[in-house]
Amino acid sequence: MSAPQVDDPVAYDRIRAVEWTADGLRLLDQRRLPEQEEYVHLTAASEVAQAIHDMVVRGAPAIGIAGAYGVVLAARARYREAGEGWVGAIESDLTQLAHARPTAVNLAWAVRRMRRAIDATGAGDPVPALLAEARRIHAEDIAANREMGRLGAALIAPGSAVLTHCNTGALATGGYGTALGVVRAGAAAGRVVHTYVNETRPWLQGARLTAWELRKEGLPATLLADGAAPWLMRRGKVQWVIVGADRVAANGDVANKIGTYMNALAARHHGVRFMVVAPTSTIDRDTPSGEAIPIEERPAAEVLGCGERRIAADGLAAWNPAFDVTPASLVDALVTERGVVHAPDRRKIDALFD
Amino acid sequence: MSAPQVDDPVAYDRIRAVEWTADGLRLLDQRRLPEQEEYVHLTAASEVAQAIHDMVVRGAPAIGIAGAYGVVLAARARYREAGEGWVGAIESDLTQLAHARPTAVNLAWAVRRMRRAIDATGAGDPVPALLAEARRIHAEDIAANREMGRLGAALIAPGSAVLTHCNTGALATGGYGTALGVVRAGAAAGRVVHTYVNETRPWLQGARLTAWELRKEGLPATLLADGAAPWLMRRGKVQWVIVGADRVAANGDVANKIGTYMNALAARHHGVRFMVVAPTSTIDRDTPSGEAIPIEERPAAEVLGCGERRIAADGLAAWNPAFDVTPASLVDALVTERGVVHAPDRRKIDALFD
Repeated sequence: MSAPQVDDPVAYDRIRAVEWTADGLRLLDQRRLPEQEEYVHLTAASEVAQAIHDMVVRGAPAIGIAGAYGVVLAARARYREAGEGWVGAIESDLTQLAHARPTAVNLAWAVRRMRRAIDATGAGDPVPALLAEARRIHAEDIAANREMGRLGAALIAPGSAVLTHCNTGALATGGYGTALGVVRAGAAAGRVVHTYVNETRPWLQGARLTAWELRKEGLPATLLADGAAPWLMRRGKVQWVIVGADRVAANGDVANKIGTYMNALAARHHGVRFMVVAPTSTIDRDTPSGEAIPIEERPAAEVLGCGERRIAADGLAAWNPAFDVTPASLVDALVTERGVVHAPDRRKIDALFD
Repeated sequence: MSAPQVDDPVAYDRIRAVEWTADGLRLLDQRRLPEQEEYVHLTAASEVAQAIHDMVVRGAPAIGIAGAYGVVLAARARYREAGEGWVGAIESDLTQLAHARPTAVNLAWAVRRMRRAIDATGAGDPVPALLAEARRIHAEDIAANREMGRLGAALIAPGSAVLTHCNTGALATGGYGTALGVVRAGAAAGRVVHTYVNETRPWLQGARLTAWELRKEGLPATLLADGAAPWLMRRGKVQWVIVGADRVAANGDVANKIGTYMNALAARHHGVRFMVVAPTSTIDRDTPSGEAIPIEERPAAEVLGCGERRIAADGLAAWNPAFDVTPASLVDALVTERGVVHAPDRRKIDALFD
């Protein structure tokens, strides 16, 4: 495969999990990947809420965008039904969409933003204005990812190999991805020549989704069991670990998929650099430090099985925290769309918002 | 459940994966655990070789013991067939058994020891003498495990929780286990009150085998994804990590199941103590350090799937080292049947053999 142009903005960017079509919202069903590449077409807001709940679409930014398009579908139906009375009728749809997954901050944020657009509409069909706002939310997410990709890739020496965890790619966002956006931009610039992917138990987002994205883009990738990552670093195989974030505290502590902390610890021990890629909307300035971030514990069944297969003895207990917290002291670079924060701390993060 | 006597030698020791019965060798089929508890009965040496090859029985000590009983079955058949000519006829059986799995040191060792017993037999039926030798090999393994259990448990403060990796229990040995023997002895002594078990991808020995053993013994256990172990330590949930070894180098470096190194690194970082439990037969004094230990790389398919289920995209590469090496500097205690080596190094290990 010949290397694409360094400044080619569309290199390695051929996957969209969330797309508006002529008749509604098209979602790539992530529950069926990588076995089946199947799309669902949704024409009603209640279908969108159900799809978010059922994890047809996942990843906080992707869920927010799907929710915004869901509001457009709601407005279309309510305007057809109720004419100018649509604004009152849509309220229950907004509530249903915003609560489809209560922990995803971006979903509530996107619905709030669409509500402001609703408040600004005049008489007549509201769909054109609302669709424009949903498209803006979508486009802004992709643009932020592209900018983070550019900024993150610039930190990586040409010819490097990197390790990533979970899925932070096109499937988790409006497109391109956060940490995987840096991988894409780095590959386009000849900086990332190989990507190692932690399988990311228990949900296997790395094996099922990230590896699929990289294959789809034709980028060289190697899968490994999570416990092998520190040994990979000891063997000198990677120069950077690149991950996303579910929430960044005001002091730079990072909550992300369980296993992230292990990678950060091992990276520091082996002189491998550790990069967190997250838009400023992921920084929660109201949370002073990682200790204040609530860690969701998910059902034991996810650990006791692998997909539909039961792997452990009946009656066994399992501990299944969905996230862990990596202290800011282990982060070499926090990449946001507003710039890179090296060795993040509260003061430097505050400066991002000035 | 009431706590058993501290000195009760049979507490938590109700599993035998390898047993001699009136008509031959009985093996617990470990490929079917934990779904099915199924035993196979073998009456010919070739069946034993096949069972070792197919991983009906696994774990280096268990394989050695099964091989020794296989030699008894060979002698019985050859003596029936050839009378006093049995010694010549058995040679091909010994070769077949010794090579059933070429990497298991204990298998070759056990067959060599049975060969010395063959050399010592006089005229007449050789089975009683050979069966006695095989039973001795088996009994010595259990006795060594019990002694290691006693020595290791004595290091653990009463009321502790521990973390273990892979399977080092009754299923991997003649009975009782190495690292899991310490858990058993520690539980009997009130020192180990809870055991956390890493699922141990890709083969899931922790989820499938260790968790099954602990449930079977009625011992409290909690399963976790491998990547969650450092977070468990950070949360202060465990006081010791206890693992076995596939090979210990002369300087105390430890080759063990992939993921062990991650646990050792994280344990040191969090002030959790790290114990390796292995009989002196596992110490390879001809290997100066961990760098000289060859690391078997196993097929990608193990990482690309989970049991029979394919989890990753077609055509993807995977890195699947079966073992990693933990430097001696990260080991707090090496427990052998001859005694405990604290902070092992070459000099202290040499002293074990004086």
